[in-house]
Amino acid sequence: MPRFVVIGRTATASGDFLPDDVPGTSGRLDVLLRCVRAALLSSHGLRGDVSVHLVLGGGPRAPRTLRIDGASARFIRPDERSLATLVRKTLALVNVAADAASGLGADAPPGAAVDTALAFVEVKPGVAVASSGLEASLASHDARAPLFVLEEGGPDLRDAADVAAPGATFVLGDHLGFAEDARALLAAHGARPIAVGPRSLHAEDVITIVLNEIDRRSA
Amino acid sequence: MPRFVVIGRTATASGDFLPDDVPGTSGRLDVLLRCVRAALLSSHGLRGDVSVHLVLGGGPRAPRTLRIDGASARFIRPDERSLATLVRKTLALVNVAADAASGLGADAPPGAAVDTALAFVEVKPGVAVASSGLEASLASHDARAPLFVLEEGGPDLRDAADVAAPGATFVLGDHLGFAEDARALLAAHGARPIAVGPRSLHAEDVITIVLNEIDRRSA
Repeated sequence: MPRFVVIGRTATASGDFLPDDVPGTSGRLDVLLRCVRAALLSSHGLRGDVSVHLVLGGGPRAPRTLRIDGASARFIRPDERSLATLVRKTLALVNVAADAASGLGADAPPGAAVDTALAFVEVKPGVAVASSGLEASLASHDARAPLFVLEEGGPDLRDAADVAAPGATFVLGDHLGFAEDARALLAAHGARPIAVGPRSLHAEDVITIVLNEIDRRSA
Repeated sequence: MPRFVVIGRTATASGDFLPDDVPGTSGRLDVLLRCVRAALLSSHGLRGDVSVHLVLGGGPRAPRTLRIDGASARFIRPDERSLATLVRKTLALVNVAADAASGLGADAPPGAAVDTALAFVEVKPGVAVASSGLEASLASHDARAPLFVLEEGGPDLRDAADVAAPGATFVLGDHLGFAEDARALLAAHGARPIAVGPRSLHAEDVITIVLNEIDRRSA
């Protein structure tokens, strides 16, 4: 069950963006949406053994982390517009729950209340949200499984013996790279740098190449 | 200069689709748009040595082939909506030119007239259109360069000595696979089957993996 954690430093955590202009109004959430497709979809549908975490660091509700599990998610479409709608509706539900919990809003939908910051709360089948950032993904990482951070110039993925190990987690930056606090947190958790090749690529391409390597070793 | 040729069996050749619902109204042009991003964009911008051909087999103006060259194209954005707008505007210009040439429409814009079916005519910098299908891409393929067709179960990309050879062309099907006439045409041109791994993947993921292999060999 590989997990991909993509850090969107400016990506909106509130879901407030224009569907007709996701790149221009969401803090580049579009970068993360494309990672969802790369992580979860093959030609024959969902990859049931993969989960993807989107760390949303932008806007008034930040940080939040949205997790989608290939094992139980439904109606995951490959196009950006459908993925944007999924994320927007999910975050809108969480907004209602958060406002209710703080006495500001209407009643929370059942099961949508967020109680502790590090816990992922399922909002709809296979889609869960935590009201914290990278910490939430690392708290649920099995310490016995490898933790990789994708870095230009790191050791080659193809030379790493354990990329296909159960529970392996791969942490990726968005177009802005990693912030210092994220780097410190990853180092504290023993994350090992790894690279997919000699060229700097979009996060979604990195995910595609990692999964190809895992597919090859698992075949 | 690797070239990627993606065959969209139902993708609209006329550019008549709704920008708000590309997957539902364009014959799945969205599949091909995502291939443009995968082929032409890395983190640092355009890949100046790559071109991508979209073979558009759907609708009243079919077949047409739209070519985008990384060396001279401008304003290529990674998001589907921007890519959809680029393709729609390009095809609208070609529609005007084609109607003018057949005496049905207004004056063609300079340089946009399509004279022979196999010739690519540049419509805007780095963007050209031919009024034929796969034949146009194969006619401009250097017979001394390798021609690959991506096929599940084919020989492994990593074992092919010449994937990074100059002018190598990679032909991919969309979600519907190849039609019989396309298969026959590819066989007649000596196309060799090749596969990127054990799992069936979206065309854009296949392009990403091929380019990673080429990047590694060229490093």
